[in-house]
Amino acid sequence: MGEIDKTELVALTHRLADAARGETLRYFRSSGLDTSSKEADRFDPVTVADRAAEKAMRDILDRERPQDAILGEEYGTKQGSSGLTWVLDPIDGTRGYISGTPTWGTLVGLHDGTRVILGLIDQPYIGERFLGGLGQASFKGPHSDGPLQVSGCKTLADATIFTTFPEVGTATQAAAFREVAETCRLTRYGMDCYAYALLAAGQIDLVIEAGLAPYDIQGPIGVVEAAGGVVTDWQGAPADQGGTAVAAASPEMHAAVLEILARHV
Amino acid sequence: MGEIDKTELVALTHRLADAARGETLRYFRSSGLDTSSKEADRFDPVTVADRAAEKAMRDILDRERPQDAILGEEYGTKQGSSGLTWVLDPIDGTRGYISGTPTWGTLVGLHDGTRVILGLIDQPYIGERFLGGLGQASFKGPHSDGPLQVSGCKTLADATIFTTFPEVGTATQAAAFREVAETCRLTRYGMDCYAYALLAAGQIDLVIEAGLAPYDIQGPIGVVEAAGGVVTDWQGAPADQGGTAVAAASPEMHAAVLEILARHV
Repeated sequence: MGEIDKTELVALTHRLADAARGETLRYFRSSGLDTSSKEADRFDPVTVADRAAEKAMRDILDRERPQDAILGEEYGTKQGSSGLTWVLDPIDGTRGYISGTPTWGTLVGLHDGTRVILGLIDQPYIGERFLGGLGQASFKGPHSDGPLQVSGCKTLADATIFTTFPEVGTATQAAAFREVAETCRLTRYGMDCYAYALLAAGQIDLVIEAGLAPYDIQGPIGVVEAAGGVVTDWQGAPADQGGTAVAAASPEMHAAVLEILARHV
Repeated sequence: MGEIDKTELVALTHRLADAARGETLRYFRSSGLDTSSKEADRFDPVTVADRAAEKAMRDILDRERPQDAILGEEYGTKQGSSGLTWVLDPIDGTRGYISGTPTWGTLVGLHDGTRVILGLIDQPYIGERFLGGLGQASFKGPHSDGPLQVSGCKTLADATIFTTFPEVGTATQAAAFREVAETCRLTRYGMDCYAYALLAAGQIDLVIEAGLAPYDIQGPIGVVEAAGGVVTDWQGAPADQGGTAVAAASPEMHAAVLEILARHV
C-alpha cells in the first residue's frame, strides 16, 4: 500500500466518522428513541440513530470504495473484491447512549484479510477522536490534539483496569476477571469503547472484556496497537473476530494477565 | 432573599466553577500527578489539581463573601456569620479523574443552615455545567443549553439506575442496592457525580449511593431538586450531611425504593 493510498484511507475514515457524528448527535438525549430490542431475552436497544449512522457510513463507502467489503452491526455483510473490509459499529455502547453518558462511540476498523490495519474510536458528544494505524496514532479532543502512546506499565499492582459490565461475561469469565482486577491498583466500570481510547492515550493500563462481536473490537484493536499496546483474546490468539479481549499497555502486563486467565478458562 | 441577591449568588457560583475549571483542566491527563493517599488503607487519591481548584474557589469567596462559611473537601471548615455555607468538592470522582474519564466534576452547594438552596455540577473536560436552585434549573453543554427537568418516571421496571461502584458501600448496603437494581430496566456504573446531572437532565431515573461526605452530595441535591427530583438518605431523611443517598425522578419511585431499602437496613 503506497503513501497516497494510506493518506486517502485515513482521510476517508475521518469522513466516515464525521458522517456518523451528524446522525448520532441528532438523536442523542432526545426523547422518544426507538429502543426496540433485537433479542427478546436481553436488553440490547437499537436506536434509529444506530441505523442512520451506519447507513451514512455505508453510503460513503458504496460510493467511494465499491470494491471493498463492509461488515456492519446493523446492516450485516456486503461482499467485496479488494481484500479490504470496513468494519462498522455506529454506536458502541447503546446502553450508555440511551442513558445519556458521554462514553459510547462510533467504531471503524479496516481489515486486510489478515489483521486490522486501521482503527478509529469517535466520541461525538465530547468531540473527541482517536485514530491508529497506517503509520498514524493520534487523537483530537476539545482542548488539544497529539500523538497516542500507551503508558507502558508493566506491573499489575500499578495498573488501572477497566471493563464495562461488572458481570463481564459468563460466571467463569467473571471469576477470571475478578482475579485479575484484584491484583490491580484500581478497577473502574461503565466506559464502553472509551476505555480503549483511554488505554491508547496512556491514561489507563488494561481493558478486559468478553462477549464481543468483531465490530465491537476491530476499531479499538487498530487504535490500541498503533499506540503501542497489545490486544489478543483471553488465550493469546487474535481478537479481531470477537469473543474475549485483553488490551494491555505492555507485553509484560499482557503476559501476566493471560497467565491468570489461563487458570480459569 | 431578594431577586438581586439570587442573581448575584448564581453568577458567583458560575465564577467559582470557572475558576476551578482552570485548575482541574491544567492537570487533567497530565503525567506525574501526585496521587498521595489521604488514608493509608484505602485508595483515595488527592491530586494537586484538587487542592489548586479548591483554593481558587476559596480565594474568590474570601474576597467576595467574607461573611459566609465554607466547607471544602481539601481545606476543611471556615466559620461564617451570614448563615450561608459554601460546600465545595473541587474534584468529585478523583479515581475517574486520574483515569482520564470525562465523568468527574466540580461540585458547589450553597446551604442556608436548613437546606441546600443552590447546587452546581460542572464537567470541565466536556465543557458542561448543570445548575439548580434559587429559581433556576438549567444546563449548558458543548452542543446546546436549556432547562433541566427530571424524567418523572414512576415505575422501577422502567427505570435506569446508576451508582458509581458496584460494591456500593457495606455488604448490607450492597445487597440492598442489588435488590433495587434487579427491579430496574437497566443498571450502569462508573459515572461519579455525572450520574446526578443525567438524572436532572431526564436521561436516567435513579441514583443510589452510600459512603458520601456532605461535599459529595450538596451540589447534586441542589441540581436534582431544582429539576423536580427527590433526594433523601436511604431512610427518607435529609441527605445533605452525607452518608447514603437516593435521588429519584419522581416521589412515587422514591417511595418504592425506600420500601425496598427498608427491608435491608
